[in-house]
Amino acid sequence: MDKYEKVIELAKRRGFLWNSFELYGGAAGFYDYGPLGSTLKRRIEHIWRELYIIHEGFMEIETPTIGIEEVFVASGHVSGFSDPLCECRKCGEAFRADHLVDNMIDVADALSNTELDILIKDNDIKCPECGGDLGDAYEFNLMFRTAIGPGSGRAGYMRPETAQGMFINFQRLSKFYRDKLPFGVTQIGKSYRNEISPRQGVIRLREFTQAEAEIFINPHNKTHPNFERFSGTLVNLYSEDGQERGTIEQITIGDAVKQGIIAHEYLAYHIALTNHFLWRVGISPDHLRFRQHKKDEMAHYAIDCWDAEIETDRFGWIEVVGIADRTDYDLNAHAKTSKTELYVYIEYDEPKMVTNFVVKPDMGKLGPAFKGKAKSVANVLKDMTREELEQDVIKVIVNGEEFIVSPDLVKFTEERVKVSGENVVPHVIEPSFGIDRILYCTMEHAFNEEMVAAQEETGSNKSKDPKKEKRIIFKLKSEIAPVQVAVLPLMTKSELIEPANKIVAVIRDRGLLVSYDDSGTIGRRYRRNDEIGTPYSITIDYESLDDKSVTIRDRDSMDQVRTPIENIGNLIYELVYGEREFKNAGVPV
Amino acid sequence: MDKYEKVIELAKRRGFLWNSFELYGGAAGFYDYGPLGSTLKRRIEHIWRELYIIHEGFMEIETPTIGIEEVFVASGHVSGFSDPLCECRKCGEAFRADHLVDNMIDVADALSNTELDILIKDNDIKCPECGGDLGDAYEFNLMFRTAIGPGSGRAGYMRPETAQGMFINFQRLSKFYRDKLPFGVTQIGKSYRNEISPRQGVIRLREFTQAEAEIFINPHNKTHPNFERFSGTLVNLYSEDGQERGTIEQITIGDAVKQGIIAHEYLAYHIALTNHFLWRVGISPDHLRFRQHKKDEMAHYAIDCWDAEIETDRFGWIEVVGIADRTDYDLNAHAKTSKTELYVYIEYDEPKMVTNFVVKPDMGKLGPAFKGKAKSVANVLKDMTREELEQDVIKVIVNGEEFIVSPDLVKFTEERVKVSGENVVPHVIEPSFGIDRILYCTMEHAFNEEMVAAQEETGSNKSKDPKKEKRIIFKLKSEIAPVQVAVLPLMTKSELIEPANKIVAVIRDRGLLVSYDDSGTIGRRYRRNDEIGTPYSITIDYESLDDKSVTIRDRDSMDQVRTPIENIGNLIYELVYGEREFKNAGVPV
Repeated sequence: MDKYEKVIELAKRRGFLWNSFELYGGAAGFYDYGPLGSTLKRRIEHIWRELYIIHEGFMEIETPTIGIEEVFVASGHVSGFSDPLCECRKCGEAFRADHLVDNMIDVADALSNTELDILIKDNDIKCPECGGDLGDAYEFNLMFRTAIGPGSGRAGYMRPETAQGMFINFQRLSKFYRDKLPFGVTQIGKSYRNEISPRQGVIRLREFTQAEAEIFINPHNKTHPNFERFSGTLVNLYSEDGQERGTIEQITIGDAVKQGIIAHEYLAYHIALTNHFLWRVGISPDHLRFRQHKKDEMAHYAIDCWDAEIETDRFGWIEVVGIADRTDYDLNAHAKTSKTELYVYIEYDEPKMVTNFVVKPDMGKLGPAFKGKAKSVANVLKDMTREELEQDVIKVIVNGEEFIVSPDLVKFTEERVKVSGENVVPHVIEPSFGIDRILYCTMEHAFNEEMVAAQEETGSNKSKDPKKEKRIIFKLKSEIAPVQVAVLPLMTKSELIEPANKIVAVIRDRGLLVSYDDSGTIGRRYRRNDEIGTPYSITIDYESLDDKSVTIRDRDSMDQVRTPIENIGNLIYELVYGEREFKNAGVPV
Repeated sequence: MDKYEKVIELAKRRGFLWNSFELYGGAAGFYDYGPLGSTLKRRIEHIWRELYIIHEGFMEIETPTIGIEEVFVASGHVSGFSDPLCECRKCGEAFRADHLVDNMIDVADALSNTELDILIKDNDIKCPECGGDLGDAYEFNLMFRTAIGPGSGRAGYMRPETAQGMFINFQRLSKFYRDKLPFGVTQIGKSYRNEISPRQGVIRLREFTQAEAEIFINPHNKTHPNFERFSGTLVNLYSEDGQERGTIEQITIGDAVKQGIIAHEYLAYHIALTNHFLWRVGISPDHLRFRQHKKDEMAHYAIDCWDAEIETDRFGWIEVVGIADRTDYDLNAHAKTSKTELYVYIEYDEPKMVTNFVVKPDMGKLGPAFKGKAKSVANVLKDMTREELEQDVIKVIVNGEEFIVSPDLVKFTEERVKVSGENVVPHVIEPSFGIDRILYCTMEHAFNEEMVAAQEETGSNKSKDPKKEKRIIFKLKSEIAPVQVAVLPLMTKSELIEPANKIVAVIRDRGLLVSYDDSGTIGRRYRRNDEIGTPYSITIDYESLDDKSVTIRDRDSMDQVRTPIENIGNLIYELVYGEREFKNAGVPV
């Protein structure tokens, strides 16, 4: 069993992840979050919201998961969001054509369909399922398609990213933020990708959760007002140069900008914030790097783009976050398709004096000369250049009709005017998080097995038995652990159950998720809680009745402290949210 | 302008609700939640989670919004989830056939398509859009359909409710809860309904958010262990009898069960919990009632079903929550379609002695008599009744072939055995919340206009001007208000801005959403915050620099208190979450 299998086995058994539609044989590319998985996911999202919404001030919006066709025509998804598909002529099974050849060539996903066909033919590649002949590769659009309303309806698609819902609200958002750059907006929600043939379990889903921020900034100023916060932060960068050399470099965010590795401060700040978030949810820093998109893989409009990649046991380095400077591409695309100007007016720090060329047609003379057409002629004149107006005769064309205007009918001049600002299409910085993959990685990085004494009892009853057994521990950060504390009466006796239930109620009132467990030996109950990552367990024993104290056990160290019941709710809250260290939680046992 | 228009106007202007896809002309049945609307929604969901997940212990799961066909065949949605559709033969516009006649008849939605056709013809109803002739009514399935995977793919549907994702996980869930009834599970997420022609704005959406709980209980015991909590709670019941009489009755939950109005304690408990939730998010109790489904509208399998209905200005009483005893219908439906038994084993309190009738065919005699068929004959005998076996000759049919068995070849007897439990298909109690409608209702019930003095200034600078102006206030409960506190320096001067920003940081660290606003007069800033429902505003003035105190203003009363800056973070937290009354927040100004 590799680590993926071990994690998934545990995840299924203990209610983190389940195959969707298992009762009906399942469907590839879909996973359910069980009670513990769903809670873990909510906690990861909660931390994301705390960082991006509360602290950065990028307010969240919620737009539909179904989108109308116009949106995805503008975004390019209708024409370009596809994978090469290759079907077996014998059994009909469908494959990603590039996946069929990706062990032969480095850049399989960059090949054209014709190139893929040639490779498949030349190498005599057959259907991996039945050995049959494969058909030609063709583009398969990865959006789930549906129809809105009755009949054939209006074409609709399940959104492939949450981003477009934010771009098309640009005007509303800009007004909400009183037209002041920079401003940011976020969305956490489902996105969809109708994968041809997903075979990587929870890593490649057809329905997944994204947390995305779109930050609209002034294209003339990509410094970050709060850059100092992260300039000393060390990150693992796998830059374009580094990829050439095959080396990952540990460098501070400040130096990376200074040396021109990261394009500018704004992008660098968000790489650092991503780094901070991933560390906070428990990703091991040694298995985290930021990989720069190479020139030939980066979208043509992007200035710079970095992927946060996490190293996993089975799948190697997988992309979990993309952080890109998308320039004004998206706003321009929607402006063009919707025929609506999308910009903000930016006031200069100081008004500027600029020279304007001004044409003044003499209406007193044009009127008699051109009668009813005089106004149209004047309008054309106003748009002409100095060069055109300095000709001996000026030709004006109105609706295909030519008029000759004598130069004395029009005056022109240069005027110095004060301009206090300009209309600007903002650039967009986009950090885009794949929550499901991050969640899986927190589980894989938290998964531990170790040999411990077979009998672990409460402090007053420690066993001397040297027999060893395997302990599985999910070393989830206490802030994201689904069950935050377990309450365990030493025996199933009412005199212990009653105070235990009281403690449960007190802790619950602090908003913590607490489990009560009285079945099996205390050692087995510890193991169960170790497996699901419960960071702290409270044991109530007979001494508790006299000394009004309980034992708290720390999951990772298995250390135990004795502490008064009186303040237990606040104490556990402080432990879970990192406001108190375990060694300060009571008297060591 | 009716109240709906006023609320929606404000909601659009201030970033609560926006028409989706406005940039492309919009699409009926879809709404966006802007920054404030999305935050309001998260807070309502948070309270729901606190009540149902943390306190009731019904863990949340998350299943895909796309479902495979088998699930919705079993649930009945493929065959039965439809509305009667009627198209105009001239302009092609589509209408709900029952809506075309619902001002003529009380139970339009209970009519068959033929009955609808007759009514439309007899009353000479024409297309409301163009006056053209209407075609015959036919059933239109309301699920959004899509295809999973390439080619024509596998049929998939956007789920019409979150419930099915919980039912089909019954086995996994039962194991998670160690096969002990009752247990509950919840899901908050998107559901979809491809409405024929939605015309009620935010009240009838094609994509909406549900919060549903499925509680699996012992069908032999529908008492609730915690019933005492609510037995004295008064609710407005609009029972089946009450609907006959046209009266809503205010009655305690306990009496409603005693008098047989609500079927049993478990359902009654969840009606009361729904009542509590709706009160907590700010629904006015005077405009809330629970309406019992009449026998003829209730699903045939349900025992009892109540809708929480909220009174709105434009739409009258609208359903926002359904609370039903769905019996074992859903589990049986999935058991049948999936050919999997779905039950839990329930141990009796005391083992029971039961009498079993046992048939013992004498194989020593049957063998010689029936040779190779002897075993089949014996198996049939084992299932026969005492009456059949007491005949003079016993007829046994095996695969259509008849055998005559002499009575002496088979013995039967009665045995007393101890049985300690049985397999039971649980019944399901389902509270199902429509979050979008509830959110709209919190806004409508919070919307207020009042006339106040035109100039409202801080305490030290109160105006004597008696001129009046209209004040719009969103009297949202402080717990759900999107912006929880506004920080307002009296003047845009750095000596005030700096301490204001410090206060913002302190409050933000308490996890509260705080806005900083320094533009416009203090009166205008109060109005802006009144409009978005910010419960408290903090003003920093020049005196603050000396006395290290600030003024807090209460949105609803406009009262102001002066309080030290030192403890401002905790103070605001306590005010927002109802742990402190405003009158105890400082010295009245």
